[in-house]
Amino acid sequence: MKIGVFDSGIGGLTVVKSLLENQLFEEIIYYGDTARVPYGIKDKTTIIRYAIEAVEFFKNFEIDLIIVACNTVSAYALDEMREVSSCPVIGVVEAGILATSNALKDKNSNILILGTKATINSKAYEIGLKMEGFYNLQVKATGLFVPIVEEEIYEGEILDAAFKHYFNTTATPNAIILGCTHFPLIAQALQNHFGKDSILIHSGDAIVEYLEKTFNLNTKHKKPKLEFFASENPEALKSIAKKWLKL
Amino acid sequence: MKIGVFDSGIGGLTVVKSLLENQLFEEIIYYGDTARVPYGIKDKTTIIRYAIEAVEFFKNFEIDLIIVACNTVSAYALDEMREVSSCPVIGVVEAGILATSNALKDKNSNILILGTKATINSKAYEIGLKMEGFYNLQVKATGLFVPIVEEEIYEGEILDAAFKHYFNTTATPNAIILGCTHFPLIAQALQNHFGKDSILIHSGDAIVEYLEKTFNLNTKHKKPKLEFFASENPEALKSIAKKWLKL
Repeated sequence: MKIGVFDSGIGGLTVVKSLLENQLFEEIIYYGDTARVPYGIKDKTTIIRYAIEAVEFFKNFEIDLIIVACNTVSAYALDEMREVSSCPVIGVVEAGILATSNALKDKNSNILILGTKATINSKAYEIGLKMEGFYNLQVKATGLFVPIVEEEIYEGEILDAAFKHYFNTTATPNAIILGCTHFPLIAQALQNHFGKDSILIHSGDAIVEYLEKTFNLNTKHKKPKLEFFASENPEALKSIAKKWLKL
Repeated sequence: MKIGVFDSGIGGLTVVKSLLENQLFEEIIYYGDTARVPYGIKDKTTIIRYAIEAVEFFKNFEIDLIIVACNTVSAYALDEMREVSSCPVIGVVEAGILATSNALKDKNSNILILGTKATINSKAYEIGLKMEGFYNLQVKATGLFVPIVEEEIYEGEILDAAFKHYFNTTATPNAIILGCTHFPLIAQALQNHFGKDSILIHSGDAIVEYLEKTFNLNTKHKKPKLEFFASENPEALKSIAKKWLKL
């Protein structure tokens, strides 16, 4: 299969990493809308407009599937993308809900949902988890984590102060949904803050789990063809991809 | 005079506030590119492209002057805007340099330049201040201040941690250039951090000083006509404008 991976910026490379580790696809085309990142502070109508443009971009290639690596886009624009796409479109939110549900046996488990302002406002994770029978939810828009990670801060005083700011009254959860592709980069700091018993739900792993259940992906592709595109500064994206994905 | 004020988002309202307080203009049209904010993390070519689109937007009105309230746009795109504009275009960077130069008698004064990554990378303030004879400069890209202010955090632990992160080795300056429209909102915190002797250079006041020197603005306009436009969520912009500008 030849697939497209869409993200608002570079964060979706954490999803590509999981795809590569599991050798699921023959060819992966990555598109990051780096000229208009971040989406997480934007309006629903704007997010949908940008997401539809991404589908149009992928029409330049004959792909079999679009994976939306961005939680904000997954939360708002999947239906609209599907309307204009000639191939299936799947998103990390539905995958994350499934992975959380599979990871927790007890429906009374406490789940902490983290995401950008837009993702949290969409209530996409909340609604999905309630449909799976989970009602013990804590929800936090942790928007500052995005610029903090983009400053390459993954631990230390600023992050500790941000944790205190956001999690002052947060009970230790059984599972934490890392509902933004930036958040896996502070997974260790979150684990240290909440303790080792909280399960972390990572979009990349969740999507792999979802793909393996949904599609017949028996063939392993050890050396998939990779292409990277960005709406701004593609060189920077390629260089980060090389570093993160060890290409 | 009927003028246009351009900013990447809502921050430029701090400049409008200064214009209103000084009753300089008959009519002010504000345009914030809220759908694509923030500009400070973007590339030069992208910033120029967006800035030219803003000039095109103002062609819908018969204006006499465009004021660029955004430091990042002022640092990168003024020449390109002037090429496509039929009226003069002035920016907060040149105004800020002039205001700093006027405020400091001693050319050996130490000046701390704060701004977004893009503004700092442009070296616009550095080059301008050196041309004015100031060589004792400290330069800091303090990108995190933008999302912190947008979370409506103006004091407290996160900001203190960010100050420690950025100003660990920064000597107390004689003047601090608030080289981003978001930074006046943490002016008090910066003043507390560096002490009362550091002069703060505010883009809004600087542009007023610049305008009064450059144009013949003798008539006072007590009740100027105001119009607000945004590329996304104009209602939110108008509601913030009402609050900030006490309309």
